Amino acid sequence: MPQHTDRRYEEELTRLRQHILEMGGLVERQIGDATRSLTSGDLELAEATIARDHEVNHYDVEIDDECLPLLALHQPAARDLRLITTSLKITTDLERIGDMAVNICERTIDLHDKPQTLVLDLPRMADLARRMVRESLDAFVREDADLALAVCQEDDEVDDLQQEMFEEVLPRMRQDPSLVVTGMAQLFVSKYLERIADHATNIAEMVIFMVKGKSIRHLSVPQSL
Amino acid sequence: MPQHTDRRYEEELTRLRQHILEMGGLVERQIGDATRSLTSGDLELAEATIARDHEVNHYDVEIDDECLPLLALHQPAARDLRLITTSLKITTDLERIGDMAVNICERTIDLHDKPQTLVLDLPRMADLARRMVRESLDAFVREDADLALAVCQEDDEVDDLQQEMFEEVLPRMRQDPSLVVTGMAQLFVSKYLERIADHATNIAEMVIFMVKGKSIRHLSVPQSL
Repeated sequence: MPQHTDRRYEEELTRLRQHILEMGGLVERQIGDATRSLTSGDLELAEATIARDHEVNHYDVEIDDECLPLLALHQPAARDLRLITTSLKITTDLERIGDMAVNICERTIDLHDKPQTLVLDLPRMADLARRMVRESLDAFVREDADLALAVCQEDDEVDDLQQEMFEEVLPRMRQDPSLVVTGMAQLFVSKYLERIADHATNIAEMVIFMVKGKSIRHLSVPQSL
Repeated sequence: MPQHTDRRYEEELTRLRQHILEMGGLVERQIGDATRSLTSGDLELAEATIARDHEVNHYDVEIDDECLPLLALHQPAARDLRLITTSLKITTDLERIGDMAVNICERTIDLHDKPQTLVLDLPRMADLARRMVRESLDAFVREDADLALAVCQEDDEVDDLQQEMFEEVLPRMRQDPSLVVTGMAQLFVSKYLERIADHATNIAEMVIFMVKGKSIRHLSVPQSL
């Protein structure tokens, strides 16, 4: 392969990583804005966030379009091959995280005349989920399997937090039926945030596979690699 | 490339399609068993279904392991390349559908001492979601973009059904607080089924891309291709 093609190939891999990071940054912003719209009852912010989802979707299609020629023209092997196939799979997770942010905004709109916050820990849970997304993508770009493993370990904290929310809010809904609609919507939001954390965990597991060439998916999370 | 390698390559592609179909058949069974466990309050069935999830996960890792050498060794182009990259992405969706079936079984276990069925249309919704999964994979194996398009169009029916369930059950929960726990759990199940239909739709969109080489993802569903 002539050297200028090699250089072009390296540039394309760098651009691919860059686009994944940009998509990740956008998705992080969407989670933050969606949660803020819910806790502040800000309808305009909810609508602006929903409108911005098409940018997330655009990255999803664009990154796929970048990966296929890389596979077809350059016959990458080993670690490069895993980088490209991991990118193809990561965009699916990032796109779904974007959908979760839209779902949260839809709950903001449903609840706009009932601004009461029942589930007090939602912002904390959102911060955790965002951090996990950011760290999983940092791990991807730096090819840092240890950071990816740390993300997998954080997932338990989110699951515990969600369990606590259910235990706290369900009895209140039973005691006071006027809380049913708001409680239900906010517990759904906690479920969306938990799912965002799951997607970040999936990304982190794929990064471990990309770097180490072995899968930890569907195993208990190890203490170290 | 020597002819025997060609034949081997074709056999490997056939085996890949076969494994995706097997994974799909297993996932369909998981949805059916999970829903039946919920509506009949059958704890043993719920536990057996949860235990079987590791088989779904096994396919997920195995199919990835098949795709990477196909990409690395055979330098597939055009339609074959799209077949392999689509397979890589489809397993992610199928694996998540398996997780949704597990989530439904967990609700069966939560509700085992409260066997009342509030959301009467859950079995119908489950049948629809299963059918969409089966059709999306039939479309994949037959490379049938029209069938894939039909799946995308069915997704609206599931969304409407879910909306109706919320409108029916939420007021009953408000009137009778003793229904809060069961109603909440069953509405979560309806959400899991809706998400299964979303995954089937994602698969169908990927099949359209695989066959036609153009993406309809994130566009309004066209009437025909």
